[in-house]
Amino acid sequence: MSNAHDPLPLEHHNREEFQLERMILFTDAVFAIAITLLIIEIKVPELHHPSDQQLVQALLQLTPKFVGFFIGFLVIAIYWVAHHRIFRFVRHYTGKLIWLNILFLVSIVLMPFTSAFYSEYTASLNVPFVLYCLSVAATGLLQVVLQRYLRNPANGIIHPADADHPELDLVRPMVAPFAFLIGIGLCFTLPWWISRMTPMLIGPLMALYGRRYRRLQREYTAKHHAIAA
Amino acid sequence: MSNAHDPLPLEHHNREEFQLERMILFTDAVFAIAITLLIIEIKVPELHHPSDQQLVQALLQLTPKFVGFFIGFLVIAIYWVAHHRIFRFVRHYTGKLIWLNILFLVSIVLMPFTSAFYSEYTASLNVPFVLYCLSVAATGLLQVVLQRYLRNPANGIIHPADADHPELDLVRPMVAPFAFLIGIGLCFTLPWWISRMTPMLIGPLMALYGRRYRRLQREYTAKHHAIAA
Amino acid sequence: MSNAHDPLPLEHHNREEFQLERMILFTDAVFAIAITLLIIEIKVPELHHPSDQQLVQALLQLTPKFVGFFIGFLVIAIYWVAHHRIFRFVRHYTGKLIWLNILFLVSIVLMPFTSAFYSEYTASLNVPFVLYCLSVAATGLLQVVLQRYLRNPANGIIHPADADHPELDLVRPMVAPFAFLIGIGLCFTLPWWISRMTPMLIGPLMALYGRRYRRLQREYTAKHHAIAA
Amino acid sequence: MSNAHDPLPLEHHNREEFQLERMILFTDAVFAIAITLLIIEIKVPELHHPSDQQLVQALLQLTPKFVGFFIGFLVIAIYWVAHHRIFRFVRHYTGKLIWLNILFLVSIVLMPFTSAFYSEYTASLNVPFVLYCLSVAATGLLQVVLQRYLRNPANGIIHPADADHPELDLVRPMVAPFAFLIGIGLCFTLPWWISRMTPMLIGPLMALYGRRYRRLQREYTAKHHAIAA
Repeated sequence: MSNAHDPLPLEHHNREEFQLERMILFTDAVFAIAITLLIIEIKVPELHHPSDQQLVQALLQLTPKFVGFFIGFLVIAIYWVAHHRIFRFVRHYTGKLIWLNILFLVSIVLMPFTSAFYSEYTASLNVPFVLYCLSVAATGLLQVVLQRYLRNPANGIIHPADADHPELDLVRPMVAPFAFLIGIGLCFTLPWWISRMTPMLIGPLMALYGRRYRRLQREYTAKHHAIAA
Repeated sequence: MSNAHDPLPLEHHNREEFQLERMILFTDAVFAIAITLLIIEIKVPELHHPSDQQLVQALLQLTPKFVGFFIGFLVIAIYWVAHHRIFRFVRHYTGKLIWLNILFLVSIVLMPFTSAFYSEYTASLNVPFVLYCLSVAATGLLQVVLQRYLRNPANGIIHPADADHPELDLVRPMVAPFAFLIGIGLCFTLPWWISRMTPMLIGPLMALYGRRYRRLQREYTAKHHAIAA
Repeated sequence: MSNAHDPLPLEHHNREEFQLERMILFTDAVFAIAITLLIIEIKVPELHHPSDQQLVQALLQLTPKFVGFFIGFLVIAIYWVAHHRIFRFVRHYTGKLIWLNILFLVSIVLMPFTSAFYSEYTASLNVPFVLYCLSVAATGLLQVVLQRYLRNPANGIIHPADADHPELDLVRPMVAPFAFLIGIGLCFTLPWWISRMTPMLIGPLMALYGRRYRRLQREYTAKHHAIAA
Repeated sequence: MSNAHDPLPLEHHNREEFQLERMILFTDAVFAIAITLLIIEIKVPELHHPSDQQLVQALLQLTPKFVGFFIGFLVIAIYWVAHHRIFRFVRHYTGKLIWLNILFLVSIVLMPFTSAFYSEYTASLNVPFVLYCLSVAATGLLQVVLQRYLRNPANGIIHPADADHPELDLVRPMVAPFAFLIGIGLCFTLPWWISRMTPMLIGPLMALYGRRYRRLQREYTAKHHAIAA
């Protein structure tokens, strides 16, 4: 990648920028397909002698599927926004960054399956819930791995001054996996419906996290003020 | 986003432009998949001892599916063109813009379902028609929400001088939801086929709207003439 | 689009370039999905007590599906390459260009259906063949319509000097529709297998067309030499 | 493409760069769809009176499908990374480059089928294994063909100085086809499970290849040092 004797430095520079954009746009295409595939799981109900009443009932029976669709859409969207946020800092790529990104994409592509499996069965069954929790937790933890590599100045991915940028803090992507793993723990010990509430923990946990975020922001600003002054 | 002490202002600027383009191209990928998924709903008829006559009949039986395909394609295309038109003015993004855009995409991704549901049943049934009207009206109203946020100079999305650009007028995206909601109202009170005509209202309504558009255009030009002179 | 009093002419210019690229990349996403959907039509054969011999037979029975896949892939690829070739000249866009392009995309999105329908039934049936011919002919004629609009200097899409560029010649996209429409004519009058050969006419017809292409090239070079000299 | 009398040389140059990017992004969209389609092959198990135990069993029965999914994902990802690596050097395109690239894409689009076919049947059957090996070997060999065209300075695709860049070495993309073709040979002569191990040959073969790669790198650096000095 770094060839000191390149006869066309400027063009090579532009090309590396496009190489990076290409990797990001490939990621986005995979995200876009995964998020849109969610709707394929909801089949149009087929009635042979349909009436308006029967169709309303058929739609009502699809309610869990729609709930699954909206949750699945929200979760994939959250991870796309996270990817969009952290890749703002990326200036260079390495082979390892590409492969960590692909590993992250595996967990995204699995989501239409785990999401459909979860919304196929009654909420009281534990297996679909555990699989879905594992799926989201894995995505979150793979984001942590990707982000840890990315923010390490030794890897040359970002500008060294961005390494302690609050947007790259590693605690934040751990919040969702934490809540989902608690859900798994609870579903085997307490009545099933309690564990199903754990995703709601993410709200208060993120509010708590907000304090850490603002502290990191103050520190970051103070430090770079000092450098600039 | 706005870091006054950025050591690399120019590169950061380019990066923000790419971040914005990334969000738009992700949107387009979702649109492209939703619009192409429409064809998946039309299954190739399977005949065991087919003749040319039987195949013609089988194709004719698919007519409502094809009508549904063309309407669905047209509606999604109209909203893509609208998104393309209003995002021409976008210069910066915020977290809220990203999420309003994702909300808008939810309604686009639902369309292959509502469109297939509508073309699955005989036109005289009200439920598929109401669901489809709700789907299109929701998309239109979510466009209004997105556009209202976008054109508000306080949000810093567009250049302040574009805030009263006629292309960003909020009345225009309200026309289609208005027609479709009238359709819902009529289908419970009048013979069913009357309400099915309401989408045709969009033609004359848009013609009426043309007068408002031209007035806004004159005002916009006059104002910016004055500033430039 | 053309606002003489724009306070930020340069940025607006960049934005219009991105608006154009956005439209083209949306087109490419639709093409990519349509071309990849072709493989979905080939289902993995399901055998309950499979042996290697039975699997070979099952694969052999899929031969017409694979032939259909390769032809469908080739045809969509040809139209993508054509779109890539003619949009090289596009410098500005208009609302009408966008809609002609969307109309062209409708015919591309229909192809996975017409292609699967054609490869579902024995080659001796006329209806699937006629439908496929109509589908390809429609795509070709919509390309003619798009290209005619695009190369007309009055529409301000391309640089006026490119209007008589040989790559924008309207005879070339008429060759394939011509061959396929002849195929439709023949299949009702001659033994069925003769009409199935008509796509092979495209080879010699394009060789003939080569003479016209080289003449247009000479004329184009001569004219622009004269201007430059 | 090369028009010496172009009245707008700079814009034409930018346009050609976009034409090249367009071709690459189209390729990426096809890759992204093919890699995401792999998950469609894994259907959510449908049980009528499900219990947690039955669901665990149903998931366990999906194990070969998941193995197939991960292998399929890995293989497509490897070829995407290879395409990303070699197209870093591409500066210009020709009609032939576009078509060789499309040919390469055909083999990528076929992979969701061959991969699903392989994971549908017990591992002891030879036909699905042979088909999958042929599929991967074909992709690898088409990459060789594409890369051979691309690195030939006579074709004007890359900068002549990059022709002997180690990343464009033709031996590397031959390693995987070699291992898979050995697998085909062995499956007809030795117990079936031995041939199934051949993909593991790729590890030691690539380690061996590393020596060649480092030698090419030394030669490349030495040569361009000499030129620069």
